[in-house]
Amino acid sequence: MKEPRVAIAGATGMVGQEFMRILAQREFPLASLRLLASERSRGRSFDFRGETLPVQVLDDKSFEGIDVALFSAGGSISTAFAPIAVDAGAVVIDNSNAWRMEPEVPLVVPEVNPGEAFKHKGIIANPNCSTIQMVVVLDPLHRKWALKRVVVTTFQSVSGTGKNAVDELKQQIRDIEEGKPATAQVYPHQIAYNCLPHIDIFLDNGYCREEQKMIDETRKIMGLPGLPITATTVRVPVYVGHGESVNCEFKKPVEPDEAREALGQAQGVEVVDDPSKNLYPLAVDCEGQDASFVGRIRKDYSAENALNLWVVSDNLRKGAALNAIQIAELLLD
Amino acid sequence: MKEPRVAIAGATGMVGQEFMRILAQREFPLASLRLLASERSRGRSFDFRGETLPVQVLDDKSFEGIDVALFSAGGSISTAFAPIAVDAGAVVIDNSNAWRMEPEVPLVVPEVNPGEAFKHKGIIANPNCSTIQMVVVLDPLHRKWALKRVVVTTFQSVSGTGKNAVDELKQQIRDIEEGKPATAQVYPHQIAYNCLPHIDIFLDNGYCREEQKMIDETRKIMGLPGLPITATTVRVPVYVGHGESVNCEFKKPVEPDEAREALGQAQGVEVVDDPSKNLYPLAVDCEGQDASFVGRIRKDYSAENALNLWVVSDNLRKGAALNAIQIAELLLD
Repeated sequence: MKEPRVAIAGATGMVGQEFMRILAQREFPLASLRLLASERSRGRSFDFRGETLPVQVLDDKSFEGIDVALFSAGGSISTAFAPIAVDAGAVVIDNSNAWRMEPEVPLVVPEVNPGEAFKHKGIIANPNCSTIQMVVVLDPLHRKWALKRVVVTTFQSVSGTGKNAVDELKQQIRDIEEGKPATAQVYPHQIAYNCLPHIDIFLDNGYCREEQKMIDETRKIMGLPGLPITATTVRVPVYVGHGESVNCEFKKPVEPDEAREALGQAQGVEVVDDPSKNLYPLAVDCEGQDASFVGRIRKDYSAENALNLWVVSDNLRKGAALNAIQIAELLLD
Repeated sequence: MKEPRVAIAGATGMVGQEFMRILAQREFPLASLRLLASERSRGRSFDFRGETLPVQVLDDKSFEGIDVALFSAGGSISTAFAPIAVDAGAVVIDNSNAWRMEPEVPLVVPEVNPGEAFKHKGIIANPNCSTIQMVVVLDPLHRKWALKRVVVTTFQSVSGTGKNAVDELKQQIRDIEEGKPATAQVYPHQIAYNCLPHIDIFLDNGYCREEQKMIDETRKIMGLPGLPITATTVRVPVYVGHGESVNCEFKKPVEPDEAREALGQAQGVEVVDDPSKNLYPLAVDCEGQDASFVGRIRKDYSAENALNLWVVSDNLRKGAALNAIQIAELLLD
């Protein structure tokens, strides 16, 4: 693939828009770009590299003549249309949850398991945002010290839910400022000035699906099907940028300085870790950035060979659009 | 002690005000109440049970004729004035960090170690907010299943810092709404729409003092000096109510249902745990409430006999003023 013809399914969403920004920023060598969305977006258009591109309504014919289809339109659209795109000859890079755990679908983070991308049978899955930023940090540590167990708690921004959630937080902030009650529609409870320990639906085992995704996807991406890992995922009133408190135990002894050095050399990771200068990763600083930022690297004295880390990344970029486009770049000649 | 004469040092602060509300709500049998604050508050007065009480400026004579002195005016005021109050014949219940780890000073959570209160030599320390709400939940579990290790990550509200932090969050929200830059003075970084993995000062071991407090104080209160425990403490843009993601391993096998039942019978704990109805503890629901609320109780499959919990409580009440007044109540005849 040299100059692929690219389509974006879900072009008007937050990740769809980020796809367009990143394709332009990285000068992705595309021959053409087709924007696809639902009936609701008929008539809209967007500027891309000096051209005005109309939004086309997604249908069975949308993928004819397309080489790479970037999907971010929700699980049901991916389930229905990814096979159609594959039949039309496209490689689908899917940002939804629909295909990630299918055994024949590679789940790829280019810094971690780039080789998997080439085993695709038409669909490559892009992992969940909170998983990507964590595995980019865990992988270089695992290679040196062998992960034994991970306990992660997340601080996830509302943009991970979508534009309607961003609008809901804004509206609630305004309503509260004016002394009015905050109305919750996107989330089951008020998100302004509140933290919701609930992301995606609840499963029978008591976990949210987001928590289960972090467990299952981390194991698949890192090729560690039995990795002991647990997660608690929490929505916080932040617009962009997910934070993660990651506690990890290793099989081999590791010192914070050694971890800092290994992470400093790792692809896609940026170490921001100088407490004496109040330097640690922050959501407001990571917006628009590519890296998974890590700091607060310190020994956990409660277990052998254990570290605490604080990881932050732009959930719309490395957590979604950037990672998908990096996968597409792997497929270029 | 039957009808003690009570003084509040730091009466104009957020916790000081909560002291007054709770003394009134619980009909604490006080003979008199003296409000003490710094020179800055000279001339102010507050209504208490239908009386108007003037704020007196704190000095060396402030504690004459006082039986119980509730301190919440910061560590340096406690260091300087608690011994003076003790010399004047008062029992000091101190909400600051100044005396908590002194071996001869009891550190008390009435639901956990009430007996310690009676061993005081004049000063009883009130633990850190984030510690109190956690140990109230951990203790009944520990009694049945024996704690082996705790990994906690906190989501702490700005009221824990004080009124100036509440004002800073409000002002930043307004400034951002108006397109102006957010100015940070109380915190080293913007707190609006952001999470700061930094509470209190940083220590040489890379931990924030808040993290070290949770470790040291939990061990002291629970009488488990060697308990393996680590903490990551994070400030979030919430006004009142601290959240905590608590991962705990036990020595004996425990099922979530058993834990739910034990917690349901525990003093000071309220179980809010029905994911099928989107019920779990929330900061906005706990404001003004006394309990430590716990939910999201589920098995952690990554370790033997392990559970994940989500704990929320009003940091100004059980996390500060309420717990201190409960200690005072222990001392009543």
